[in-house]
Amino acid sequence: MARTLAVLAFAVHALAQLKGRGFPDCNSGRLKGNDVCDQSRDAVTRAKALIAEFTLAEKLNNTGSTSPGVPGLVPAYTWWNEALHGVADSPGVKFSDTGDFRYATSFPQPILMGAAFDDELIKDVASVISTEARAFNNFDRAGLDFWTPNINPFKDPRWGRGQETPGEDPFHLSSYVHSLIQGLQGDDAKYRKVTATCKHFAGYDMEDWNGNLRYQFDAHITQQELVEYYLPSFRSCARDSDVGAFMCTYNALNGVPTCANTWLLQDVLRDHWNWTSPDYWVTSDCDSIQNVYSPHGYTDTREEAVAVSLKAGTDIDCGTYYQSHLPGALEQGLIDESDLDKSLIRQYTSLIRMGYFDGDAVPYRSLTFENVSTPYAQQLAYRAAVEGITLLKNDGTLPLSIGNGTRIALIGDWANATDQMLGNYKGIPPYFHGPLYAAQQTGAEVHYTRGPGGLGDPTTDSWNAIWTAANQSDIIIFIGGIDNSVELEGKDRTVAAWAAPQLDVIEQLASSGKPTIVVQMGAGQLDDTPLLKDDNVNAILWGGYPGQDGGQAIFDIIRGVVAPAGRLPVTQYPANYLQKIPMSDMELRSNATSGSPGRTYIWYEDEPILPFAHGLHYTNFTAEVQKSASPSSYANNSYDVSSLVKDCPESYMDRCPFQTFSVDVANTGSVTSDYIALGFLAGTHGPAPHPNKRLVAYERLHNITGGSTATAALNLTLGSLARVDDKGNTVLYPGDYALLVDVQPLTTVNFTLTGEAYTLDHWPQPPEARFQDTDYFVGGYGSGAPYQIQVPVDA
Amino acid sequence: MARTLAVLAFAVHALAQLKGRGFPDCNSGRLKGNDVCDQSRDAVTRAKALIAEFTLAEKLNNTGSTSPGVPGLVPAYTWWNEALHGVADSPGVKFSDTGDFRYATSFPQPILMGAAFDDELIKDVASVISTEARAFNNFDRAGLDFWTPNINPFKDPRWGRGQETPGEDPFHLSSYVHSLIQGLQGDDAKYRKVTATCKHFAGYDMEDWNGNLRYQFDAHITQQELVEYYLPSFRSCARDSDVGAFMCTYNALNGVPTCANTWLLQDVLRDHWNWTSPDYWVTSDCDSIQNVYSPHGYTDTREEAVAVSLKAGTDIDCGTYYQSHLPGALEQGLIDESDLDKSLIRQYTSLIRMGYFDGDAVPYRSLTFENVSTPYAQQLAYRAAVEGITLLKNDGTLPLSIGNGTRIALIGDWANATDQMLGNYKGIPPYFHGPLYAAQQTGAEVHYTRGPGGLGDPTTDSWNAIWTAANQSDIIIFIGGIDNSVELEGKDRTVAAWAAPQLDVIEQLASSGKPTIVVQMGAGQLDDTPLLKDDNVNAILWGGYPGQDGGQAIFDIIRGVVAPAGRLPVTQYPANYLQKIPMSDMELRSNATSGSPGRTYIWYEDEPILPFAHGLHYTNFTAEVQKSASPSSYANNSYDVSSLVKDCPESYMDRCPFQTFSVDVANTGSVTSDYIALGFLAGTHGPAPHPNKRLVAYERLHNITGGSTATAALNLTLGSLARVDDKGNTVLYPGDYALLVDVQPLTTVNFTLTGEAYTLDHWPQPPEARFQDTDYFVGGYGSGAPYQIQVPVDA
Repeated sequence: MARTLAVLAFAVHALAQLKGRGFPDCNSGRLKGNDVCDQSRDAVTRAKALIAEFTLAEKLNNTGSTSPGVPGLVPAYTWWNEALHGVADSPGVKFSDTGDFRYATSFPQPILMGAAFDDELIKDVASVISTEARAFNNFDRAGLDFWTPNINPFKDPRWGRGQETPGEDPFHLSSYVHSLIQGLQGDDAKYRKVTATCKHFAGYDMEDWNGNLRYQFDAHITQQELVEYYLPSFRSCARDSDVGAFMCTYNALNGVPTCANTWLLQDVLRDHWNWTSPDYWVTSDCDSIQNVYSPHGYTDTREEAVAVSLKAGTDIDCGTYYQSHLPGALEQGLIDESDLDKSLIRQYTSLIRMGYFDGDAVPYRSLTFENVSTPYAQQLAYRAAVEGITLLKNDGTLPLSIGNGTRIALIGDWANATDQMLGNYKGIPPYFHGPLYAAQQTGAEVHYTRGPGGLGDPTTDSWNAIWTAANQSDIIIFIGGIDNSVELEGKDRTVAAWAAPQLDVIEQLASSGKPTIVVQMGAGQLDDTPLLKDDNVNAILWGGYPGQDGGQAIFDIIRGVVAPAGRLPVTQYPANYLQKIPMSDMELRSNATSGSPGRTYIWYEDEPILPFAHGLHYTNFTAEVQKSASPSSYANNSYDVSSLVKDCPESYMDRCPFQTFSVDVANTGSVTSDYIALGFLAGTHGPAPHPNKRLVAYERLHNITGGSTATAALNLTLGSLARVDDKGNTVLYPGDYALLVDVQPLTTVNFTLTGEAYTLDHWPQPPEARFQDTDYFVGGYGSGAPYQIQVPVDA
Repeated sequence: MARTLAVLAFAVHALAQLKGRGFPDCNSGRLKGNDVCDQSRDAVTRAKALIAEFTLAEKLNNTGSTSPGVPGLVPAYTWWNEALHGVADSPGVKFSDTGDFRYATSFPQPILMGAAFDDELIKDVASVISTEARAFNNFDRAGLDFWTPNINPFKDPRWGRGQETPGEDPFHLSSYVHSLIQGLQGDDAKYRKVTATCKHFAGYDMEDWNGNLRYQFDAHITQQELVEYYLPSFRSCARDSDVGAFMCTYNALNGVPTCANTWLLQDVLRDHWNWTSPDYWVTSDCDSIQNVYSPHGYTDTREEAVAVSLKAGTDIDCGTYYQSHLPGALEQGLIDESDLDKSLIRQYTSLIRMGYFDGDAVPYRSLTFENVSTPYAQQLAYRAAVEGITLLKNDGTLPLSIGNGTRIALIGDWANATDQMLGNYKGIPPYFHGPLYAAQQTGAEVHYTRGPGGLGDPTTDSWNAIWTAANQSDIIIFIGGIDNSVELEGKDRTVAAWAAPQLDVIEQLASSGKPTIVVQMGAGQLDDTPLLKDDNVNAILWGGYPGQDGGQAIFDIIRGVVAPAGRLPVTQYPANYLQKIPMSDMELRSNATSGSPGRTYIWYEDEPILPFAHGLHYTNFTAEVQKSASPSSYANNSYDVSSLVKDCPESYMDRCPFQTFSVDVANTGSVTSDYIALGFLAGTHGPAPHPNKRLVAYERLHNITGGSTATAALNLTLGSLARVDDKGNTVLYPGDYALLVDVQPLTTVNFTLTGEAYTLDHWPQPPEARFQDTDYFVGGYGSGAPYQIQVPVDA
């Protein structure tokens, strides 16, 4: 007897929906007179009034990322919009083929903006993005919510999506994302500019490591490392930055898929971090709800998978699994209508908060294409690239005079980059100012050739042209490394060495004796050892994915039009580091049993090739910490824990101020330059093992002229000093502390804390988990038994 | 002081050369009167006469795959032509955009043709390919040599190029390749039709396994397993099939890059296998000569790398490294002019043997586009697909009546396949008869939808359309699995499980209760466990990459127009097999220390999901071995080793006949069907451990009607019985032997050998190797210490 398969009442194809989307009509039809259109009422009341008009079937159908809305009542809405480093192609965003809205500003990838260590810059960039997003929305070319930022810490150089993040340090990410959200969500008291979405919550930083697919991976993370490393950026989003949305992940966390994880989505996110505004919502990653059923196999039926996810607090399913299987779940009594209502109220309250129903009353409704790609936005995209580009090696050859009469060989697979400069989650920029373009603007005679088959493929066919270009030139600039062909969503790297053919060519070029500059592109670091050791290679710049004006930024730094001051936002490990630690190993601390040498500059126990925050200048700096009685400066060298906590006015004690260290930075050279004052904390305090050091404060100082001094304020809170215990509690410990200014410290301040340890934050404990192994969807060799997929056993 | 980089005298871009290529002109200019044009002389004399006209610079420039020739003397020639399963796109092959030569016949990938176990078919296919290749050559659209076959045994299901091979069994490959070369090279006594190239010699079967790139991998293989498994197909090419060319590999073999490996290219290939005809040549893989220098780091300088490779016997460099660095090697005295001459004489002797200088005297010169894609060729491409397609499961549902009035849901990412059916190294076929096309030809009402985001990406967006199609149909045919997006040159698989979304969709479709057929496509096997266990899934077919008429072949089998008789040419392992053995582990035998369960059906110690040579029919067969006194049939059950070897007339004793077993095969059902008689040898003889069994003979019987009997001849030689010792010697051992007919044996013959062991072949021993580790280019985690790159230490 043939059974009929459940088919949705509405077709939900993203593209089809875009056409009929439009804005709600409060002036006629069914909405006229509905309280959702009454701007004097509070947002929740308004949302409830709208939902009251939905039939049960309509509620079920509006649980996916492509919401069909209700014909005649409320338009379709596409929740999936992207804007990682500019308004970006995605189901909800539609660039025009001609005329207005055919482009938007394309900033550098976050990994390069992270290298700027400039929170004000990030807020400015995010403000431009949200302005352009609103302009797109006003002309029905984008939604109001955007699934950005990606704020998982970039702890493993293999990660294909590391480019989307500001780097490996949790404090840096927390600070960066706070500014970013301010810029995206705006500061209008009534209307949120756009809704940002902090993703991916949590423990997601692997695509496909040797068959360990993100869809099935179970991240095993201790509470200690979860709180101290994997979650701070998300806490910053939820507790400290009023972010409007979260996204749960493909992976499971300690046995439970995150989208079905009540502890994570309720106990931690909503309860502990007080992320309780009625307009806050959680979306699944696309289609992580399907993954809850398979390959995770977390539930026996599809209906249980959707029910447990909805009840855990995943409000929107990116995909169709909710729409397909919530009807069955309802029929089986696994959910009831109020579960649907809760989620729908969150969705519409969010839209109401952005003025979706308020027409021209919303100030952002006046934005048009005139506000897109303005001269200011273009200059900001250029400046973001300049601020991030990092000088890794220089024997004094840089800056180089390049202009009329100079003959440059411009060589490599990035030398004529266009789209490549954008990385992933990209839109369409107004122009591509790549290296070749920028070189030609200098008036120099440019001999360009593509690279030596760059990224692992040893094709020598093009090499003859390379030698010819080099022989015709006085200066050799090689622009290569890696790009989205080897690091991308769905694709983790497997090698951290430079491709042998690139090294072979660079070595031959450099042996010519001509000034040779290497520009290393891409997000994941390559082991630069052969280039650092080769005296014929005069300088190395790292350029990440520098966006629409990336070539100009690179050339302006090479020529000394601007001085470099970026810092590596990640550690550069030796190539054989990848041999020593499975990508699936989430542990940060070194481990004698597994042989792991530890992860990130905080815990890595060996010498890196280049350390986190490495970056050279065209001048020299000294630094000194002011010691004075003034409250804004460092005064003591011993503090009593109980005194520190006694006067704490904050409900979240880690946010209480400890001390501001004012650092006088002197430019002792002659070249005007930015300088990033970085404060690292080291010392023996709290539970062993003790980290090497950890970043606790930074400030970028701008345009310090030769011979002059500028002052940075490194603000430390009690949270800066605290450590995390094995239960995940945040504790202020007595012990020795040292504040180091810069990577190779220019100055150090030592102080001690005395008295009894004090718990600043009591961490909600997860339910005890029991696992059983299933091995059909298991990943490839090398993940090891502890990383196999596990599903809970019924108690 | 700036040094000038060496630039080639001639630009050697493949495409540029194609234009000026043409044929040699023996009637005027410098060739007129040169002995190379004298057809009465022997080929070597002719080649030497030509080379005598070359300057030293011209010799140096003609060492690459894109030979510039000598202007005014001999035209440019492109050595790199491909024809894996039909004339294929490659530097030397140029399809026309319009008119003649815009297509050629595209046969199934070798993996599916291997499943046919039909050597006569293979010879016929190869004859068509070489005919079409000659037609292309006559109109300056292809060269005369082709870099096919890929005959490395497909031992690991992850290998991205397994599709290019006939499967995992060394006897099968040896037999297949012998027929293939006959078909390609033809049987004209004077003129070779085209030159085939056996590749990749040797130990190459990994692209990029977790950072273990083929360019840098050092395959560690014992002499025993080299001789018994990795080399038989190459021995068949060189010693037994007169193949005209070989290709060495990217990888190193036991510490020495194969293109620089004198032992392999001289001692084994040319001396031991007597591959000494003056027209035989070896090409490098593209650009494996560069790899000798880096990443292998086998030599300290580029000049040493090219010198050692040329002297080892690599005559042609696919690439430009010879052309760039042999001049320096000559200058440094690392080679002399006679080294260049030796290689050039081989190249031109080969061209002379194919009639390159003989104009219309060559019979193949009359072939035109009329001889391309003939009705016979088209029918053969269809038949090759039919013969290979393999029935893996059937509960009696197949064959299915499909025609007017039938409503079919045709679902999956292969359902409307076109180019996908060809796999890699493809040309342009005359048409694509994919599954959708074939379904529509039946007159049925076809409801087609694409798949569920197929290959690992769980995108549920298309699922609604799937349910709709299923609900509108009476029969569900799902065509999915994998394709070149997950297995390809440069890309090994990491997962052997079906993608979770495909399983989710199949399971839901099958639960409808409608007849549900799954067609599993791609070369690497997927673990079919969930489909085999699901009683709602009525049948499973495996379709590989079936070529231009693949959809028609699949549908004709589903409908019973033809009966399936293909056999899996590889083992189907459980998905978690990949967890148990690093891809870089070359050992075949199981290993308690490493935990390897062994490789291939010969050594795998666990239960496969489906065994090597598994394949069902639409009828039933019984088999019986004739026992008679006639010399062509099996007569005894005990043999004395010394008697067996005494009368051996062969110089290569493994080729001596042992016994022909005549097998009577009876079709006891009613459906006319082919049947592949497979002879496996098992038993306790020779060095422990003993293999499970090994294939020693096969014959495909055609069109056995219901109730009738046909007879297969399983010819066993002394080599069939022999084992290989730890030095690589091939030895006939006393002991117990059993000949099993078929996978689940339909009949078995037991016999014994008595007396003293006798060595049939004394294996040339390699020089002792000493290694040191270098770790810059090392691959990613999981390869383990024994698989790190190693370079020889100077003694």
